[in-house]
Amino acid sequence: MFKLFPLENGLENVQGFFCGATNVGMRTKPTDAANSNIDGDVAFIRSETPCDISAVFTSNKFQAAPIKHFQKYPKGFQTDFVLINAKNANAMTGKKGIEDIESIMSTLSTKQNVLNPVMSSTGVIGYRLPIDKITSAFDMLDFNTSNSHHAARAIMTTDAFKKELAYRVELEDDSSFHIAAICKGAGMINPAMATMLCFIITDADVPKSDMDELLTVATEGSFNRISVDGDTSTNDTVMLLSNKQSSSYDKDAFSDALNKIMFELAMLVLKDGEGANKLVAFEVNGARNEEEAKRASMALSNSLLVKTALFGEDPNWGRIASTIGASGITCDDDTLTIHYDDLLIYSAEFRELDKVREEKAYKIMKQERFKVTCDIGLGDASYTSYGCDLSYEYVKINAEYRT
Amino acid sequence: MFKLFPLENGLENVQGFFCGATNVGMRTKPTDAANSNIDGDVAFIRSETPCDISAVFTSNKFQAAPIKHFQKYPKGFQTDFVLINAKNANAMTGKKGIEDIESIMSTLSTKQNVLNPVMSSTGVIGYRLPIDKITSAFDMLDFNTSNSHHAARAIMTTDAFKKELAYRVELEDDSSFHIAAICKGAGMINPAMATMLCFIITDADVPKSDMDELLTVATEGSFNRISVDGDTSTNDTVMLLSNKQSSSYDKDAFSDALNKIMFELAMLVLKDGEGANKLVAFEVNGARNEEEAKRASMALSNSLLVKTALFGEDPNWGRIASTIGASGITCDDDTLTIHYDDLLIYSAEFRELDKVREEKAYKIMKQERFKVTCDIGLGDASYTSYGCDLSYEYVKINAEYRT
Repeated sequence: MFKLFPLENGLENVQGFFCGATNVGMRTKPTDAANSNIDGDVAFIRSETPCDISAVFTSNKFQAAPIKHFQKYPKGFQTDFVLINAKNANAMTGKKGIEDIESIMSTLSTKQNVLNPVMSSTGVIGYRLPIDKITSAFDMLDFNTSNSHHAARAIMTTDAFKKELAYRVELEDDSSFHIAAICKGAGMINPAMATMLCFIITDADVPKSDMDELLTVATEGSFNRISVDGDTSTNDTVMLLSNKQSSSYDKDAFSDALNKIMFELAMLVLKDGEGANKLVAFEVNGARNEEEAKRASMALSNSLLVKTALFGEDPNWGRIASTIGASGITCDDDTLTIHYDDLLIYSAEFRELDKVREEKAYKIMKQERFKVTCDIGLGDASYTSYGCDLSYEYVKINAEYRT
Repeated sequence: MFKLFPLENGLENVQGFFCGATNVGMRTKPTDAANSNIDGDVAFIRSETPCDISAVFTSNKFQAAPIKHFQKYPKGFQTDFVLINAKNANAMTGKKGIEDIESIMSTLSTKQNVLNPVMSSTGVIGYRLPIDKITSAFDMLDFNTSNSHHAARAIMTTDAFKKELAYRVELEDDSSFHIAAICKGAGMINPAMATMLCFIITDADVPKSDMDELLTVATEGSFNRISVDGDTSTNDTVMLLSNKQSSSYDKDAFSDALNKIMFELAMLVLKDGEGANKLVAFEVNGARNEEEAKRASMALSNSLLVKTALFGEDPNWGRIASTIGASGITCDDDTLTIHYDDLLIYSAEFRELDKVREEKAYKIMKQERFKVTCDIGLGDASYTSYGCDLSYEYVKINAEYRT
């Protein structure tokens, strides 16, 4: 038995960690996100003692320089410093991009004692980092205080709101540990975790092997199940750092807390899907195997026609059925059923939508959150992914985003 | 040697064929396409003598009733009648959907002597065909005249303009044959030919085996290379009918004419991509094998981020590179080059876009048509697909389409 207590604020709840941000002038417009809360472009997370670190990176073949830089450290390395910048992805920058990070970290080490520092970047692809601007941050940052809000805001790009969460986990023996995270991401979100950065820190006494295992599981259950537009960025990163400053640990409790914090952040990212207004769970049951359940579910959360139907609040189940059929999985219109929440919307006996059910369907679709359940009727495998609608705003944001 | 002569008008150019359309009141709004030229909802194509017929159908697992009805005929069957309706896809309608077609064709046979009639439908999924309305067409249609414009307009749904083309093909021996087609399709267009109907007729003396072979090749070179939004419908159909009323035939000439008519129709469909303003060729060269070249090329023409960048006329090659990397093919940012038309926009030596090249890139992107060429630099394989931009109009059309 264990209990999870949500905490106010974010990263500052975890013992022995410090974080903050500053503004070095990389944002050319006063506000380039949907709100005006962005007041920084370079952030840091530091631990006063060395941390184990586990990370999951993008599946994009053009991994950005900070990811390549991370991978140059020996397996199982420890670190006590993460530097994060917005506005420039340091992607497609070749060897020079990695050298730039090394140069920045070299300057950092003259100001602050750091162990194997790592970097994470988000922004436009194809430009060298402005090294002088970024290193100017080291004169402004106070590495011995914590301002999680500031850090969470500084890493935003097209995000409409900052994303941070923290929990205290109490075990049966009355010991407790903390876990907290900041996250950014709104557009380009896809099964392979696109343009999404997530930094999770904990003081739990978690073994490195558990960190690796549980981070992979939690990623599959959270960020890999959401889709805003099916694209995948060069920079996606989820990092988990533990400094073990609490002697408390229980694998089930830690796993539960990690899954919960990552799932909730994924839902916040989805809710912040560029211009999105609705959050829809696509549960596929009765598939022949999990691979097919996943394929159909992800096809639904990625489909432009489904997304625009959600935006139009059109209970047109034909687009749902057509998308399942187009996904290529084994299916049969005689065994398929489709529900919106608890409302049966399609089965072999009820193919046409009568006025009564159509009215009910309209009401369900007007909700901010609802579930589409598709039972393929041919097996036992299930998979749930999460999608959002596609609005005019999405096109506007992505047509205008860059400078 | 052979010559192709484009002809005015459409299907009426081909000997021994008749076509036309009428309005049976299935369109509830006076105009539900982008223009007001639609003046029918049921169309027919008839030959005075039996035709060989070849067809390519959707890869969607939920094939619509007319496709299943077609496939009930024995292999190599001949027909002399195609009936087409808009506004109702007769998809996901189960066995009843097939019985409805049989009932309609039974009524037809009381009015007109027909051999193995086939049907093709487009519209909303999940509703039974209005049999009485459709059969009422048989009292209004004149099966012995030809009005190709009328037929081409009657099969439109979200199309902004009708699509019909015709050629006369002159061989070296001075003999000649004709080939003509009508086509509909705008939204949902994808590699697997979504919501797209295309009817090609010819009087060439083409053997059935050549028809099958050449139709497959021409489909791969045309409709399978275009993408508007990556979805695939239940009803996609390309049919080729030949009544051999001309004794003229040459395989190369016929193949050339078929490829040309289908490629041009595919470009018209793409140009009519819902709300699309730009037509872009994505040529991928230097891939390790054709499968990878195709995967990267189709990823580019399907990517929402690329599409919105095209709409925004943003020369952000980072989205091009990121999409190639996300497609999962083998690639390396040191060997990759990207051109917009003839302008080098990315190579390992020129990673950052300077102002001069950026200005040139803006000019290229302002064109209605241009080419993006990506050389992976790792092999000899190439593939070209064709895409369009994604505009506010796309969202509007698809959010509001149905009733």
